[in-house]
Amino acid sequence: MGSDLPSAFVDALRSQLGPEDVIESGDDLRYYASDRCKGDWPVAPGIVVLPRSVEQVRAIARLCTAHRVAIVPSGGRTGLTGAATAIAGELVLSLARLDRIESVDPVSRLLHCQAGATVQAVQEAAAAHGLSYPVDFAAKGSAHIGGSIATNAGGVKVLRHGLTREWVSGLDVVLADGELLHIGGELVKNNTGYDLRQLFIGSEGTLGIIVAATLSLDRPPAGTLVALAALPSDDAVLGLFERLRASAGLVVSAFECFDRGCYARVVEHRSRAATQPLEQLGAQQVLVELELRDEGEREAVHEQLVALFEQAVEDELVLDATIAHNEARARELWAWREDISESLHPHTPHKADIALPIRQVVPFMTRWRAAVAAALPDIEALAFGHVGDGNLHLNLLRPAALAHAEFLARVHEFDPTMYGLVREHGGSVSAEHGIGLLKRDYLGHTRSAREIALMRAIKQAFDPLGLLNPGKIFTP
Amino acid sequence: MGSDLPSAFVDALRSQLGPEDVIESGDDLRYYASDRCKGDWPVAPGIVVLPRSVEQVRAIARLCTAHRVAIVPSGGRTGLTGAATAIAGELVLSLARLDRIESVDPVSRLLHCQAGATVQAVQEAAAAHGLSYPVDFAAKGSAHIGGSIATNAGGVKVLRHGLTREWVSGLDVVLADGELLHIGGELVKNNTGYDLRQLFIGSEGTLGIIVAATLSLDRPPAGTLVALAALPSDDAVLGLFERLRASAGLVVSAFECFDRGCYARVVEHRSRAATQPLEQLGAQQVLVELELRDEGEREAVHEQLVALFEQAVEDELVLDATIAHNEARARELWAWREDISESLHPHTPHKADIALPIRQVVPFMTRWRAAVAAALPDIEALAFGHVGDGNLHLNLLRPAALAHAEFLARVHEFDPTMYGLVREHGGSVSAEHGIGLLKRDYLGHTRSAREIALMRAIKQAFDPLGLLNPGKIFTP
Repeated sequence: MGSDLPSAFVDALRSQLGPEDVIESGDDLRYYASDRCKGDWPVAPGIVVLPRSVEQVRAIARLCTAHRVAIVPSGGRTGLTGAATAIAGELVLSLARLDRIESVDPVSRLLHCQAGATVQAVQEAAAAHGLSYPVDFAAKGSAHIGGSIATNAGGVKVLRHGLTREWVSGLDVVLADGELLHIGGELVKNNTGYDLRQLFIGSEGTLGIIVAATLSLDRPPAGTLVALAALPSDDAVLGLFERLRASAGLVVSAFECFDRGCYARVVEHRSRAATQPLEQLGAQQVLVELELRDEGEREAVHEQLVALFEQAVEDELVLDATIAHNEARARELWAWREDISESLHPHTPHKADIALPIRQVVPFMTRWRAAVAAALPDIEALAFGHVGDGNLHLNLLRPAALAHAEFLARVHEFDPTMYGLVREHGGSVSAEHGIGLLKRDYLGHTRSAREIALMRAIKQAFDPLGLLNPGKIFTP
Repeated sequence: MGSDLPSAFVDALRSQLGPEDVIESGDDLRYYASDRCKGDWPVAPGIVVLPRSVEQVRAIARLCTAHRVAIVPSGGRTGLTGAATAIAGELVLSLARLDRIESVDPVSRLLHCQAGATVQAVQEAAAAHGLSYPVDFAAKGSAHIGGSIATNAGGVKVLRHGLTREWVSGLDVVLADGELLHIGGELVKNNTGYDLRQLFIGSEGTLGIIVAATLSLDRPPAGTLVALAALPSDDAVLGLFERLRASAGLVVSAFECFDRGCYARVVEHRSRAATQPLEQLGAQQVLVELELRDEGEREAVHEQLVALFEQAVEDELVLDATIAHNEARARELWAWREDISESLHPHTPHKADIALPIRQVVPFMTRWRAAVAAALPDIEALAFGHVGDGNLHLNLLRPAALAHAEFLARVHEFDPTMYGLVREHGGSVSAEHGIGLLKRDYLGHTRSAREIALMRAIKQAFDPLGLLNPGKIFTP
């Protein structure tokens, strides 16, 4: 891949960075230029740089501004919408070498780190002080904290602990022209004009380059209680959710559902014969996690949950349920939920990450299944997700006999129907993955024309030359 | 007060609104044009309107745009920075008649209401469904929910439940040109571009007119345990705070401090001789509230708190402490904190609402007291506040012998020193009250020149004619 970048620009970059911090060709160039989402767009980076200091990031931005070179900020490359993909000879700026955990303050419960620290490294640094960073998702070992902020990452604990947005106390951001903003930081309260921090959270690298963050930490739960239940219907899922949340003293930290098809694919995917956790399966399975305030209450909470399930069985909300009696069993139950993505992978699923008002989850699923059955009768449709947040991951599986290109053509043809249903049910075309390149054609399904015009005006105010991650979020 | 508004504009307004919904003169005109903050700026409204529908709000905005008339949105007029004060013949748009609670959905735990509903009405509507709206502050009976969102109100439960920002799920906003935006709503997750909702929260009416909101609700605590303690020093306050938060199983929902002087003013202010709650006073008093998950744990939590206080006495962190044994006693202990503002009022205090990084609270207080003693040796300096959030309310009391004008001149002369100390300690010139007119000269103490330039660019994008609450937040 030949770079069309001006040689004066490339020479200036080389003078600012060590030789091992500039990648101009080879596999690394492509590796650092795309994320986990393989769409049908070109991956065409001009050059990749891996700065080792904030000052180097600033110098790179100044050079890019002077030479009108576009910048694609790159975190851990675990994104699912193509937001970190270079498509038109851009400079890819990887934050991978800015990965220091700078400090943990147990009194203020704040952690300060550079953007390239992984989410897992942040969790571990917090744990070393008896504290917890409660944002949690499968890619945490690779995902950078900076990328998780730029995409406002969700995950399996949103129900209890919220999205990444709620844990960002301060940000250091380099603007397109190289100016460094320190926004917020250690203050819990700071009502002094517009909260710019909130704009950068979820902006997918289009407003500035996040180089450091101050994160709030929490006290970890004293323990958890994990259960798995089989439910007869979609409807029963919300019924059980409501009972759990209304049950005095219970703190629900996860409420994840997956349908019978997801369960079957996990069974199929496991190499060894797994012990089935439930005597009977339902149309839906629900993984419940409760937080304990202290280990002393484990027995009482356990009894309360047993009683709740017994009543739910009597009321035909639940078919069967099991409560983990130890850590190993809890991990085993969680694995039935956590292994779904990997188990579906061989079927090259076409995925959608959508959000709905909670009371619309069941009506939507009914309509979506019917629409798939009508339009794509030979294609299996599976749903799982963070149903306590109204967040579903929809999957269409490629039948073994169907060529991949034809499969893609057919499911893409179905996308407008699916996103149309999302709109009709007051939902969002992206719950927790963002827009990137993948969903920019559907942004107008969730945001109004005036909202998009205001967003474009904000983009113009922050990045008047349009150098930061062009083509992402908005159609060009 | 003669209105300089064009007669065609006033005639058009009269044709849109009923006669009792337009105020053109008299005491009401001034009443609806200023908030609780009496600064040394003019109160000069042109006209006051009280629309009865969102459509009327939109029609008024369109008229104002057509005639280039500025709009001051007005909530419950409980603000403390002059943000709802008309200073140059503006139209004041009161949301008082848009006060319906539209719906409460106990499954989604969402409440939808118009902007003019009071915070207390929202709390009561939530309580009627066994739920809670946990933002809580003294002015809740008058403060509108719309105004509380426009100022991102804080209060006494921020430590546990966060600022208003965390409870706003959706907003309906009328822009200056009359367009109505529905932003967010029932979705927990919605990562589709910039979160415009966050910009309107805390924007003090400068970007749009909030006409309705969807609020998240919580399950109320099963009960609370309230204690009051006397501490020997500022330092001890943070020591006790850390111990409480680190104590397994305790959920601290309030941690409020007030110094000996505040306590003395409450004693002085009470007409009847009050029973002193503590055998000895300290340099600081701390009001602690713990949340119970169920009433069954009250005894155990009580014992745990007794043990913690006993150890703290032994370690000289606490001089004396008392735990409320019933509801009435809990209210009595809370009153020592809640009566402070009213008790200081006769001394016409000069107030400041500031925030600090928690570890800077004690160093700041030491410096501030010394600075007051040096510059204003005859003036009493008192501090109280939400110390768990790093939020202090500083008060300088007028000596009875000092004329009010002279007092004001002297304390205003001291303001730059005080706000300079706030800046030096990494603090914010406004924790929870906002900027309005009162603090706009000090905005640059907390926000950088570039941040302010970006905020002005956002203002320009949302309100290109500058008609929404001009002169607030930014210096003209």
